[in-house]
Amino acid sequence: MNPTSALIVIGNEILSGRTQDANIRFLALHLGEIGAPLKEVRIIPDVHETIIATVNEMKARYDQVFTTGGIGPTHDDITAACVAEAFGVPLELHVETANLLEEHYGTDQFTEARQRMAMLPRGAKPIVNAVSIAPGFSIGNVHVLAGVPRIMQSMFEAVRPELKHGAPVLSRTWYALNIYESAIADSLESVQKRYPDLDLGSYPFRREDGKRGVALVAKGTDVHELDAASGLIKELIAATGETPVEGEPKS
Amino acid sequence: MNPTSALIVIGNEILSGRTQDANIRFLALHLGEIGAPLKEVRIIPDVHETIIATVNEMKARYDQVFTTGGIGPTHDDITAACVAEAFGVPLELHVETANLLEEHYGTDQFTEARQRMAMLPRGAKPIVNAVSIAPGFSIGNVHVLAGVPRIMQSMFEAVRPELKHGAPVLSRTWYALNIYESAIADSLESVQKRYPDLDLGSYPFRREDGKRGVALVAKGTDVHELDAASGLIKELIAATGETPVEGEPKS
Repeated sequence: MNPTSALIVIGNEILSGRTQDANIRFLALHLGEIGAPLKEVRIIPDVHETIIATVNEMKARYDQVFTTGGIGPTHDDITAACVAEAFGVPLELHVETANLLEEHYGTDQFTEARQRMAMLPRGAKPIVNAVSIAPGFSIGNVHVLAGVPRIMQSMFEAVRPELKHGAPVLSRTWYALNIYESAIADSLESVQKRYPDLDLGSYPFRREDGKRGVALVAKGTDVHELDAASGLIKELIAATGETPVEGEPKS
Repeated sequence: MNPTSALIVIGNEILSGRTQDANIRFLALHLGEIGAPLKEVRIIPDVHETIIATVNEMKARYDQVFTTGGIGPTHDDITAACVAEAFGVPLELHVETANLLEEHYGTDQFTEARQRMAMLPRGAKPIVNAVSIAPGFSIGNVHVLAGVPRIMQSMFEAVRPELKHGAPVLSRTWYALNIYESAIADSLESVQKRYPDLDLGSYPFRREDGKRGVALVAKGTDVHELDAASGLIKELIAATGETPVEGEPKS
């Protein structure tokens, strides 16, 4: 069995619609690649009790948990304090991180607000990364990342070797134009029943030129099962009289 | 107090990273406009027990709940059955909807898979909309919408008059170039303390030309408080020596 991952997005700016999230898909794709697929995402507000309760629930339920957002120097950056509380440890100055920040800003400009970026839960390991001086951190099975996508991605790359890995999740996709989902629902279900360990999905689309169709996707970790199911999916499309195409059809 | 909204995104395709979600931000913005702001989002897989448990938890916790995804004719479209089970009612053929679908497809082509799109929880009210023949539906405080953004948006417009409304959430945004968040964190916190009912956020950005800055956003329902806080935010930016700009700065 592959290890499971979950993501907690901490951010009023996503819930208000101000910002289009760009982190969920990045993490979804990369966690699939390392075989620790994303099983749940929660987007929650910057509220102390909500963050603590959510971290506690998710770290008990999943093998590894990521958080994004709320680790800067402002009053709404409360993730580190909440994660400390979830783990029942104090939030304290991480000396090595404080030294790096002080060097960066200069002793005069290493203000109280900036010192907050060096406050980590006791026992946490900073995620030193290529983009930001202020680190993310890992504690137990929880990895705390920035909300800004460029910084988050750099932190994910930095922490990747420490993550739980499994068999990569692979996929096969067939596209077919001019068919309704409902026309292939029964035959697709019979493929799903034959390969219960695969995850088969059906996604209707409409292209910019107005043409409609369906994408049929098989996902799983067993390449032989995937190839066999992919062959059956190709056949069930052909049985409707339409042409199955691997990759998005151009005409 | 404004009514609260929550969203359950049902979809393996978001969790696998195949699809970039486009529904969360649409609903976040529109629910803010009608004064029923989004307080939590959960993205969960197409798993029967998970959907039922999540619907039960969210409908008890929030004033209104939306779901997106899983209402088509394929084997992974199990939202209607799960919502029925969450409400303890049978899933049954909705005669009016079945008649519309049969008329659309023709009696010969009204297959078993297509009949599934007319199966609604007993007591549910279909969300008849401009784009799809297959409706969404409302039951209790839960509104079940499609996953395809164009259809979801049409269903949202159709159900909007039935939703719980409150005072619209308004916002004021100031941008400032060349300042670190950490340089204004303390003064921003003092504005937040003065107006505890507003939601103040600080969002660092980097433009395509490489220039960096911070967006400071105040949100709330009281226009007088908002204007007063906005004035203080303008002043705190000016105090750093930088120029506060309403709307994204061009130079």
